[in-house]
Amino acid sequence: MMNEPTHTVTRYDQELERLRGIVARMGGLVERQTAQAIAAVVDQNEEAAREPPRLDAEVDMLEREAEQLAIRILALRAPMAVDLRQIVAVLKMSGDLERIGDYASSIARRALKVEQLEGALSFSALRAMGRLVQENLHKAVEAMVENDATRAKEVWNADTEVDEIYTSMFRELVTYMMEDPRNIGPCIHLLFMAKNLERIGDHATNIAERIYYAVTGDMLPAERPRGGDAAKIIPG
Amino acid sequence: MMNEPTHTVTRYDQELERLRGIVARMGGLVERQTAQAIAAVVDQNEEAAREPPRLDAEVDMLEREAEQLAIRILALRAPMAVDLRQIVAVLKMSGDLERIGDYASSIARRALKVEQLEGALSFSALRAMGRLVQENLHKAVEAMVENDATRAKEVWNADTEVDEIYTSMFRELVTYMMEDPRNIGPCIHLLFMAKNLERIGDHATNIAERIYYAVTGDMLPAERPRGGDAAKIIPG
Repeated sequence: MMNEPTHTVTRYDQELERLRGIVARMGGLVERQTAQAIAAVVDQNEEAAREPPRLDAEVDMLEREAEQLAIRILALRAPMAVDLRQIVAVLKMSGDLERIGDYASSIARRALKVEQLEGALSFSALRAMGRLVQENLHKAVEAMVENDATRAKEVWNADTEVDEIYTSMFRELVTYMMEDPRNIGPCIHLLFMAKNLERIGDHATNIAERIYYAVTGDMLPAERPRGGDAAKIIPG
Repeated sequence: MMNEPTHTVTRYDQELERLRGIVARMGGLVERQTAQAIAAVVDQNEEAAREPPRLDAEVDMLEREAEQLAIRILALRAPMAVDLRQIVAVLKMSGDLERIGDYASSIARRALKVEQLEGALSFSALRAMGRLVQENLHKAVEAMVENDATRAKEVWNADTEVDEIYTSMFRELVTYMMEDPRNIGPCIHLLFMAKNLERIGDHATNIAERIYYAVTGDMLPAERPRGGDAAKIIPG
């Protein structure tokens, strides 16, 4: 790029900036989807329940836009080193973000089917788990927008706590189901919602791993710290 | 590339070939993981249950290898048009394949916790669903290796049937849980296993969509045909 006139370099920078802007917008949208999905459940808010699926189309569109712009930049600018690593990271992260949106929509679609257990502890567990996952997702999106490896590593470490709440919530739900068959329906929804939240946390962790690699060139260890295994506590 | 000496073009082709080889190997591995996971459940085969988690490390390694080789090709060869679109598709598909491996491992880890229901219909439903998902996954991997848009579209259409079996299996499992609380534990495992299989089918569909786009330059419609909605049949 050294011999090219300045305006080309500037346009290249603008394109990279636009690409980052697209994933930042995706990040903001899936954060909103996640927040609304949780509000839909714990506040039994119908309006909140409608929003995540509604936003899905926009997230999908942005993912395609990011991909096409990335291809364009790769074709026309032949970026090197850090830029190239970041473009590849963006391509991968947009996939994670799209999945997060899917999980949030899936939670929202179940949200209004669980009113029976409204008084139960599971709602506060879901709220706590939701808060943590949202926090992690927010940090992951920030780390992504600011190329912040330190923050990325924080997200990567914090997911343990999500696992722990998930495991204890799982235990509680299984107990409810055993106690009264009328709880089975709503509990299945809650189990899947908790699972979806846990997956959102996983994808936030994936994003954190990719940012860490894109910024530092080093990989975080393949195995991240984990907190509990819900599958182990189901009665056999 | 027209003015470059032949040996460079050849090396470039070799690198692209190597990249395709890596995802083809990933495809083969996750097919094997899926097959073993299903065998682990329906035949209650301990050895089969150990294999999918064991292969995970290899799949992860191949994903990283694919990413690094893709970056290398992008940096050194500045590929254009179809090649470029295919490299981007490979980057995205390796993520789908890695996820499929995760889901298969998750099924395998639950496989030996469900013996109580061995005589129940759910096992044959899981077997049928497993067979279909494997078939679709195999076709998706073939389409990927051979850049076959027609086959890709077949996969994309066939996922409806997976949804249908999933929905009816879901209904059956909920009934078992209602009938006898002792069924709750194993049924939860089966619900999650069925869900994981359904997700594997989804990722096979994603792969098909990407191949179709990489080969033709056209996108398949955002909404694929669907068969039933399991969430709707849970008693409220």
